[in-house]
Amino acid sequence: MPVLPDIEIARAADKRPIQDIGAQLGIPPEDLVPYGHDKAKVSQGFIAGLADRPMGKLILVTAINPTPAGEGKTTTTVGLGDGLSRIGRNAAICIREASLGPNFGLKGGAAGGGHAQIVPMEDMNLHFTGDFHAITSAHNLLAAMIDNHIHWGNEQNIDLRRVVWRRVLDMNDRALRHVASALGGPANGFPRETGFDITVASEVMAILCLAENLADLEERLGAMIIAYRHDKTPVFARDIDAHGAMTVLLRDAMQPNLVQTLEHTPAFVHGGPFANIAHGCNSVIATRTALKLADYVVTEAGFGADLGAEKFLNIKCRKANLAPDCVVLVATVRALKMNGGVAKDALGAEDTEAVRAGCANLGRHIRNLKQFGVPVVVAINHFTGDTDAELNVIRDYVAAEGAEAHVCTHWAEGGVGAEALATRVAEIADAGEAQFAPLYPDDMPLWDKIGSVAKGIYHAEGVIADQKVLDQLAAWEAEGYGNLPVCMAKTQYSFSADPTALGAPEGHVIPVREVRLSAGAGFVVAICGDIMTMPGLPRRPAAESIRIGAGGQVEGLF
Amino acid sequence: MPVLPDIEIARAADKRPIQDIGAQLGIPPEDLVPYGHDKAKVSQGFIAGLADRPMGKLILVTAINPTPAGEGKTTTTVGLGDGLSRIGRNAAICIREASLGPNFGLKGGAAGGGHAQIVPMEDMNLHFTGDFHAITSAHNLLAAMIDNHIHWGNEQNIDLRRVVWRRVLDMNDRALRHVASALGGPANGFPRETGFDITVASEVMAILCLAENLADLEERLGAMIIAYRHDKTPVFARDIDAHGAMTVLLRDAMQPNLVQTLEHTPAFVHGGPFANIAHGCNSVIATRTALKLADYVVTEAGFGADLGAEKFLNIKCRKANLAPDCVVLVATVRALKMNGGVAKDALGAEDTEAVRAGCANLGRHIRNLKQFGVPVVVAINHFTGDTDAELNVIRDYVAAEGAEAHVCTHWAEGGVGAEALATRVAEIADAGEAQFAPLYPDDMPLWDKIGSVAKGIYHAEGVIADQKVLDQLAAWEAEGYGNLPVCMAKTQYSFSADPTALGAPEGHVIPVREVRLSAGAGFVVAICGDIMTMPGLPRRPAAESIRIGAGGQVEGLF
Repeated sequence: MPVLPDIEIARAADKRPIQDIGAQLGIPPEDLVPYGHDKAKVSQGFIAGLADRPMGKLILVTAINPTPAGEGKTTTTVGLGDGLSRIGRNAAICIREASLGPNFGLKGGAAGGGHAQIVPMEDMNLHFTGDFHAITSAHNLLAAMIDNHIHWGNEQNIDLRRVVWRRVLDMNDRALRHVASALGGPANGFPRETGFDITVASEVMAILCLAENLADLEERLGAMIIAYRHDKTPVFARDIDAHGAMTVLLRDAMQPNLVQTLEHTPAFVHGGPFANIAHGCNSVIATRTALKLADYVVTEAGFGADLGAEKFLNIKCRKANLAPDCVVLVATVRALKMNGGVAKDALGAEDTEAVRAGCANLGRHIRNLKQFGVPVVVAINHFTGDTDAELNVIRDYVAAEGAEAHVCTHWAEGGVGAEALATRVAEIADAGEAQFAPLYPDDMPLWDKIGSVAKGIYHAEGVIADQKVLDQLAAWEAEGYGNLPVCMAKTQYSFSADPTALGAPEGHVIPVREVRLSAGAGFVVAICGDIMTMPGLPRRPAAESIRIGAGGQVEGLF
Repeated sequence: MPVLPDIEIARAADKRPIQDIGAQLGIPPEDLVPYGHDKAKVSQGFIAGLADRPMGKLILVTAINPTPAGEGKTTTTVGLGDGLSRIGRNAAICIREASLGPNFGLKGGAAGGGHAQIVPMEDMNLHFTGDFHAITSAHNLLAAMIDNHIHWGNEQNIDLRRVVWRRVLDMNDRALRHVASALGGPANGFPRETGFDITVASEVMAILCLAENLADLEERLGAMIIAYRHDKTPVFARDIDAHGAMTVLLRDAMQPNLVQTLEHTPAFVHGGPFANIAHGCNSVIATRTALKLADYVVTEAGFGADLGAEKFLNIKCRKANLAPDCVVLVATVRALKMNGGVAKDALGAEDTEAVRAGCANLGRHIRNLKQFGVPVVVAINHFTGDTDAELNVIRDYVAAEGAEAHVCTHWAEGGVGAEALATRVAEIADAGEAQFAPLYPDDMPLWDKIGSVAKGIYHAEGVIADQKVLDQLAAWEAEGYGNLPVCMAKTQYSFSADPTALGAPEGHVIPVREVRLSAGAGFVVAICGDIMTMPGLPRRPAAESIRIGAGGQVEGLF
C-alpha cells in the first residue's frame, strides 16, 4: 500500500482534543493553556507542583552522520514513542520546535514522516505558540536597551566598538548579516557596526532551553555578556537592568508545548537552539516535565551522534542532572551506502559491500556512545528499496560490536512497525544498566575539554588554534568560567572538520578558529569551521509558491 | 469608596471562560480558537457563515482633542458597552490591540480604566494572541524577498536607490531608524540605505485592518508598492510573488480576538494601525463580525475627532460600507479647562470660565461630526474633582449646540454609571435618524480631498504644498489612484498643525510636506508635520523596572 505524502497524512490525522492528550499524562484541563484545539502549554504552576515526583526512563534517539540520503531520526523518535504506547507503556516524546524563517527558503518540514509524525504540522511550521517570536522580542529589547544606554550617557562606559550583542529575526535575510546602525544624526544614537542572526542562534534561545525555571531564566539572562568596557571588562545584561523585562517577555514561552503524534502519543515540542553554536536540544523544562509525567520519554538531539548526542550528554544532561537509560542510534541502508562511498543517485541498487564499508561510521558512533556508560541499540529505519542482504550486513556488524539492531517500519506502518524496538528499549531501560557519566569533568581546563571531545569523539589526532584562542580560554578560566562545558561548532557531515570525509576518517586535525563565551547559557563555543548564523534565501525561495489555496489550505509550504 | 489602580482591578476581575462570552454572541465553542482560557479567535469559517445576517447598530466613540489631562475615550467605550449590557441590550465592543514595544519605554496601558476595563490586561500589553508578531514576520519576509530578488539578478530591474519598503520591529529602537544594510561583501547582497519602523506603522497592519477576508488581504498585499524601477515605474509586492506567503503568515492574525470587559460584555480587540500615517481603527473584519453578532457595537477611533473620527468615517466606513448610527463625543471638565488655557498643574481648582472657553473645542467637534449626517451625543467622563457648576457649563453649551450631554461615572462605578448614556444612545440608534455620508466623494481630485478635510474639519484657511507634492498627486491620479481617500498625518493636539494651539484655532494654514501612497491599504497619506515612525526609549526606560515578582505577577509594566 503506498504511503501518502507527509502533509496529506498529517492533514488527515484524527487528532484528539489536546485536553484528552493532557489527561493521558494526568494534566488537568485547567493546567493546560490552550492554543487552539490541538496545542497547549503546560502551566508553570502545574510544573512547579511536580518537583517531588520520581522521573521516568530517558531514551535518547541519535543517528549516524547525516547524509543527503536521510536517516529519519525524528521519524524514529516518533515511531519509538508510538511503539512504546502500543505495547502499553506510558510514553511521551520531546523534540525541538521548527524555525519559521527557513521555511520560506526551502520547503518546511514534517515533525517525523510517513505514519510517524507529530501534528499539527502546519502550525508547527508557522507561528506555533509564539515561543520564537517571544525570544526575538526579548533578544531585541536587550539590543535596543544597549544602544539606548549608550545614547543617554553610557554610564557603563561601554566601548562602542565592542558591543557583542547583535539583533535577531526569525527570517532568512542575508542583507541583515552586517549593517551599520544608528545613522542619520544625533537623534538616532551613536553609529556602529552590527548585524542580525536568525532567532535560533540567539543565546536567549539556548538559555530558555537550559533554564530550570523562571528564576533561573532571569539569572542566566542577566549573566549574558553584551559588550566590553573601554577597560576590557565585560558588561552583562544585568548591568543595564534588562534581564527582568526579558523574563517577562519569555514567561509564556517558558511553558512547554504539548501536541500529539498521529497515534495520540503526547509530544512536547519546545525550544530549538542551533546545534552548532548552541547545544541543539529541546528544553530542559520540557524534558523534565515529560519525565515526571511519563514512564518513558523519547527525545532526540541535533545532527549525528558526534555533535548532537555529545552535546546532549556533555551539556544538557550534565547541567540539568539528567541521565539517559538507553540510546537509540538510527541508521539507514541508504545512508550507510553513502558513507561507504556510493553517490546519491546510485543508492537504488543493492550494494552490500558499500553498506559494510559505511558501517565504519555506525561502529564508531556505537563505541563513542558506550564511553558515556549508556546501553546502545541500533534502529534501522527501513526504506522501501532495502534488501534483506543489506539489512543482514548491518545486523551482523552491530552484533559484532556487542549491540543489536532492529529493523523498524514505523514510516510505512506507524507505531506497530517499531514495536520490536520499543520492547527491547523498554527492557534495557527497565534493567537499569546505564551508568551515565559525561566525557570530561567540570574542572578540566577548557582547552583540554575541547581536546577530549576531538580525540574521544571525533578520533582526531590533535587540535590546533592560534595563541589568541589559547589566551582567550586562559582569560575566561581566570574570570571563573573554567568549569563550563564546551560546545563544539563543527560540520555535521563528518567526524572531521572536512564535510566530505564520510565514513570513519582518521589522522585529521581539528582547527579551532575562534572561541565564544555564552556566559548565560553556560558553555564555551569552539568554532571549528564556517558557521552561518543568518541564512539567506535561495534564487527561487519557497515563499514565491506559498499561498492559501481555494480550499483554505496552505499550499507550497511542504 | 476609593477606586483601586487599574491593574489591581484588572487582576481581581471575575473573568468568565471565553467560551461563555462566545456563547453570549452565539459562537459555538468549536468556532472559538482559544488562546488560554480568557482569549480566543473567532474562526474564519464561522465568520464566512455570517454573510447574510443583518447588522446591528454601530456607535462610534470619539473625543475632543487629547490633552495631558486625559479624556477617557476607551474607558467610555467600555463603560457604554457595559451600560448597554446592563439595560438589557445585546452589546459588543471593538477596540484596537496595544503595541508591545512602547510598553518598555513608558508604562503599559489599561484597555479602559477604573471599573470600565477590558481584560486580561497583562496579556493585552504583552504578546496577546501574536497578531503583531505575525505582521512583523510578514512585513520582514517581503523585505528579505526584495533584497534577495536584487541579489539573484534583479529581474524586475529594481532601482537600488528607490526601494521604499523598510523593515519593522515591535520595539522602540532609535538605532534602527536609519541603517546601511547588506554590508560585508558580495555574499550579503547589495549595500543600500534603509531602516526600521515600529510594526504598527506597517502598511501590512493597515491592510489587515481594512481587508474583508483572506482573498482581499492577499490582493491588497500584492498591490503594495515596494520599490521603483530605473524607469520610475512602481514595483508591487506581487511582482516578486511575496503576497501569497505573507497571507499564509497572516492567516491566523486575520481572525478577530474575543475577550471581555470586567462586566463580561464581549470585546473584540483586533488590529492597531497608527492613527497618523494610517487610519487608526480596529479591523473591519472585527467590526463587521461584531455587527453580525450583536445588536449594538461600540467602537472607537484614535486621537480626537478631527483625526480619528474623520478617518473612521472617510476611510474605514467608506471603504467597508459601514455607517454609524450614533457618535459619542467624550470630553472631561479637566481637558476642557486645558483647552480653555489652564495649565496641567492648576486643574484642581473650579474654573467655570475656563471650561466655557474650552467648550469651543467641543463645539467645533460637534458641528464637524454633524456634517457627516450622524447624531452626536456628548459623554462627560466624570472625574472626582469636577464641580456641578462646571458640569452645568458643559451641559448648557452642548444644549445650545442642539445636542445633549450625559455625565458618566463608569470609571468609578462600572456600567451602572453609563446607563443613562446607554439608554439615550440606544434610543437614537434605534430611531434610525443617521444619514451617513462621507465628507467628500471618491471622484474628487486628491488635492481637493486634502483641502476639504483641512477646511471642513480643521477650519484652516488653506493648504499649502510644494509643486513636487502637487505633481506627485497628479501622477498618482494619472496612474489610477485618484479615487482613493486621503489619510491626514497631523498633530493630534490641535485642529491646526501647531500642537500648542488648543481650543478652536482659526486663520491657520495646513502645510502638506510630503505625500505617500499606501496602494495596498488604499489611501494617500498627507504628511502635515513631523511623523515619528520608530520611537526611541527614554533615559530611564520602563523596562529597567519590569520583572516577575515573588508572587509570579508582572511588576513594573503598569
